[in-house]
Amino acid sequence: MIPEEVRRILEEMKAERIRGASWMAQKGAEAYLLLSRILSGEELKRALKEMKRAIPEVNRTMASLYNLSRFMPVTDDPELVRSRAEEFLRLIKEAKREIGNIGSELIDSGDVIITHSFSSAVLEVLKTAWEKGKQFKVVITESAPDYEGLALAGELERLSIPFEVITDAQLGLFAKKSTLALVGADNVTRDGFIVNKAGTYLLALACHDTGVPFYVAAESFKLHPELNSEDVEIVERPYSRQGFRVRNFIFDITPWKYVRGIITELGILVPPKEI
Amino acid sequence: MIPEEVRRILEEMKAERIRGASWMAQKGAEAYLLLSRILSGEELKRALKEMKRAIPEVNRTMASLYNLSRFMPVTDDPELVRSRAEEFLRLIKEAKREIGNIGSELIDSGDVIITHSFSSAVLEVLKTAWEKGKQFKVVITESAPDYEGLALAGELERLSIPFEVITDAQLGLFAKKSTLALVGADNVTRDGFIVNKAGTYLLALACHDTGVPFYVAAESFKLHPELNSEDVEIVERPYSRQGFRVRNFIFDITPWKYVRGIITELGILVPPKEI
Repeated sequence: MIPEEVRRILEEMKAERIRGASWMAQKGAEAYLLLSRILSGEELKRALKEMKRAIPEVNRTMASLYNLSRFMPVTDDPELVRSRAEEFLRLIKEAKREIGNIGSELIDSGDVIITHSFSSAVLEVLKTAWEKGKQFKVVITESAPDYEGLALAGELERLSIPFEVITDAQLGLFAKKSTLALVGADNVTRDGFIVNKAGTYLLALACHDTGVPFYVAAESFKLHPELNSEDVEIVERPYSRQGFRVRNFIFDITPWKYVRGIITELGILVPPKEI
Repeated sequence: MIPEEVRRILEEMKAERIRGASWMAQKGAEAYLLLSRILSGEELKRALKEMKRAIPEVNRTMASLYNLSRFMPVTDDPELVRSRAEEFLRLIKEAKREIGNIGSELIDSGDVIITHSFSSAVLEVLKTAWEKGKQFKVVITESAPDYEGLALAGELERLSIPFEVITDAQLGLFAKKSTLALVGADNVTRDGFIVNKAGTYLLALACHDTGVPFYVAAESFKLHPELNSEDVEIVERPYSRQGFRVRNFIFDITPWKYVRGIITELGILVPPKEI
């Protein structure tokens, strides 16, 4: 049985509306860490077996959770669980820093960078570029209905990075006025498709139509080793407005061919020519 | 001087957030009608001169207002003003009915029709098709930040036409699941571009990418005789959320090449092959 304290972390992850796949992976690794402090022996082993199902279940669309559950052993040794969880947490931190380094090199002073929703990897790229002294402006969607975009706006405000917030429906209008698009990913499928907050696909199309390079920032643990784009299950969350039920699928899927490159901590992945 | 009663109609038009270009044209014609009842002679003529500027000023992006102001004479004869205004009102009504007839023929039973924002021309097409006994479902965007989509949802509910409401950012996801896209227009430029609620361009791109036919329903008085797409001024309205100013340009512009056809009361306009 998964202990109550660990189960509470999983519930917190399920309830989260603003933060994305990196935060989820970190929270998941912390859940394992806590588990290693509470249980040992056969009890630990049984709980780890349950976690292998429970962690991806938190959000079936997030490759980071699937990869975390694959990364963690099923063992009776709490020390092994602790060291693997800590390794994963270190990996998350290092990957983010390296993505900041690599991604910030794509940004030039004078750029207008358009993004959608909140991605901590994107924030890291922007922050690093700003620290390198580059001058740019960021265009942010409010990202209805949970408004994660406004959380990103708050972060940029604290960093004194100039930004403008737009409604989601203006993605096309503002893509045209931008020089670079940069989004995060919740899942990069085996065939290179980008699963990210619904609306990302629309931004990619608008960038393609107007010649604006469209980049994705994603730690390698967001690459799914098995899943193909046609098998992606998209999570829906309840939402209503003015008494009407409103459909609310969280993600959409952007074909590889509209992506200029995926910035990972290992380098920039580019699509093969013939897709 | 434009009399106070007429000026109040213009203010009401300016404040309107839900209804589109057809309603605006109708309201504008009613303003002229009222004017013809209040003034005559030189006073009327001076007021009509002012109206020629004031009517398009209500919303610079709406061709219907420009065309109405061109249609109306500058004269001292109230009878002439009255008969022209009534002619325009008749034209609006007849055009809408005829668009319903022509457009409804594009709909087959089993269709899933996606639309964006609220267009009374689109509503007329849907209503006519439903009355002809066709069975279909409509996908409606909520259309933030003024939520005109929910007004459309209310109309369809009254007509018992099945519908689903989605957030604007899901336009791509749901375009893929649709068989037909149908939107209104606030302005069709001389070069055939569609000016309509921001987000329309994104829907057109998604339809183009997934092979869904994208149609526009627009009375001929929404065709602008002079304006080219690059000269369109897009009206912005103030909007903020959670203390952040949010840009709110009302319209975007969809290139002719992404439009399968424009349903007018005169027939369906199709783009020339070589665009």
